[in-house]
Amino acid sequence: MSGAALSGDVLGDGLIRIQREIDTAFDAMLPIPDDARARLVEAMRHAAIGGGKRVRPLLLTATAEIYGVDRDCAVWAACAIEAIHAYSLIHDDLPCMDDDDLRHGKPTVHKAFDEATAVLAGDSLHALAFEILSDARTSGDPFTRAELVHCLATASGYSGMAGGQMMDIVAETERFDLHTVTRLQQLKTGALLGAAVEMGAILGHAALEARAHLRAYARDIGLAFQIADDLLDHEGDEQLAGKALRKDQAAGKQTFVSLLGADRAREQARALVDQAIGHLGQHGAEADLLRALAGYIIERDH
Amino acid sequence: MSGAALSGDVLGDGLIRIQREIDTAFDAMLPIPDDARARLVEAMRHAAIGGGKRVRPLLLTATAEIYGVDRDCAVWAACAIEAIHAYSLIHDDLPCMDDDDLRHGKPTVHKAFDEATAVLAGDSLHALAFEILSDARTSGDPFTRAELVHCLATASGYSGMAGGQMMDIVAETERFDLHTVTRLQQLKTGALLGAAVEMGAILGHAALEARAHLRAYARDIGLAFQIADDLLDHEGDEQLAGKALRKDQAAGKQTFVSLLGADRAREQARALVDQAIGHLGQHGAEADLLRALAGYIIERDH
Repeated sequence: MSGAALSGDVLGDGLIRIQREIDTAFDAMLPIPDDARARLVEAMRHAAIGGGKRVRPLLLTATAEIYGVDRDCAVWAACAIEAIHAYSLIHDDLPCMDDDDLRHGKPTVHKAFDEATAVLAGDSLHALAFEILSDARTSGDPFTRAELVHCLATASGYSGMAGGQMMDIVAETERFDLHTVTRLQQLKTGALLGAAVEMGAILGHAALEARAHLRAYARDIGLAFQIADDLLDHEGDEQLAGKALRKDQAAGKQTFVSLLGADRAREQARALVDQAIGHLGQHGAEADLLRALAGYIIERDH
Repeated sequence: MSGAALSGDVLGDGLIRIQREIDTAFDAMLPIPDDARARLVEAMRHAAIGGGKRVRPLLLTATAEIYGVDRDCAVWAACAIEAIHAYSLIHDDLPCMDDDDLRHGKPTVHKAFDEATAVLAGDSLHALAFEILSDARTSGDPFTRAELVHCLATASGYSGMAGGQMMDIVAETERFDLHTVTRLQQLKTGALLGAAVEMGAILGHAALEARAHLRAYARDIGLAFQIADDLLDHEGDEQLAGKALRKDQAAGKQTFVSLLGADRAREQARALVDQAIGHLGQHGAEADLLRALAGYIIERDH
């Protein structure tokens, strides 16, 4: 289901709004310099602007909204987590990694530019994330800024996303059981989705107990998100996805679908979404966007 | 001149001490996990431990020492800037970049492991830098932590090191003049050397005027450092350097040596070092290590 098709409801409006905000913010913060770095910034813009569902920014801003955080600050922080996500996709698509030609229906960065530029564009978006978070525009409170940096850095490094990506590479040659695949996905995808929610809560100065509930919500939708991804990879439409599918199968990797079967995987994802929504029990209508997002995660068709 | 050969003087002692401290700190903060991420952390350790002159950590800690900063905090912050330096070398050595087999006399990370692991190890060291800086162990003051992050992120991204690396790639096909080569080097090498001094000053809560002097010192030694590198590339010993030399020449890149000639380049480097030491005029014996380091930068033989 596309953002446009949902127009009129809380989720559709939320997706359209955040997609526009993130594009506008990246456009403003990445002017093309008048020197030999132009190619680098063009590659960063290629990856960061006009593509992607912006699930992490939506998670972050929807959580921040519960606590009445200033919208500009939340969008700024959302750009940081999206910069990390964008860099990870650039590097993931490289020939030495997944070797993908297509991303968000566009040529991948190393295809549109070249490999060296792709490595540097990824590295530059990586640094940009922390430049953004440590800027007073994200939060006037330095403690909040430092906390945001720590949260995102931990979630993206070897104890988070990059660690999960390493496990994913090892999965091509080693046969992982359900426990290990779950752990892999919790790191590879879950850590950053969790950080999105956590960063919204940090901006909102949420109490520790509320944070624990939000983390539990994020953990559940993170796993549901990956199961849905495995299902889409298994039965989805390449045209809609805007990228190559059925690569895990071809690589002989264990996924939730190969381990559980499609039907049980689908049930499991639904149960996780229900459980995730349950963790929002203490909140009223202000958490409706997070509730709708949980459902979207397993209903999306790309 | 090796660290050991200098033993007994302020610089030799300083180098030996910081090399040991950085190795010890990385060893402690990078235990090998008991899962499929082991290979990733081994690759990070390969790059971060037991190699390199540790010029940036020495610059940072020597500056911090002027202001009486706690040594543990300064070494911790120095690990962050060295993590950035180490990640940039891993990515720089990749086949799609400089395609180097040897670094610090050891196989490069993609040779010792593989390309995908090298990309991820670089990314993980990159994230580690900001995890370190945002940790209360680096500074109890959150404003200082946020400032350190902002300084290092800006210096390493597209407006700093990565931007300079992009210019360096463009230099293979475009003929740069002295002004553009200077700008390239100020970004590629100078930004991070400047950040090392600046971070020491941030930790020390140095006054704005003192920071301006220290920045000027860093700018001058940064350029001198690069001219010395070009001279070493031109006339150095590959065995001592522990890496392949004369690659710029082969690639037809303009360098300070090709543009100025070796003699004028050497004079220029000496003048910059004198000028750098001049910027430390307000300081007494507490800045002797920075003075000695300025000289070392052009006298080193690798």
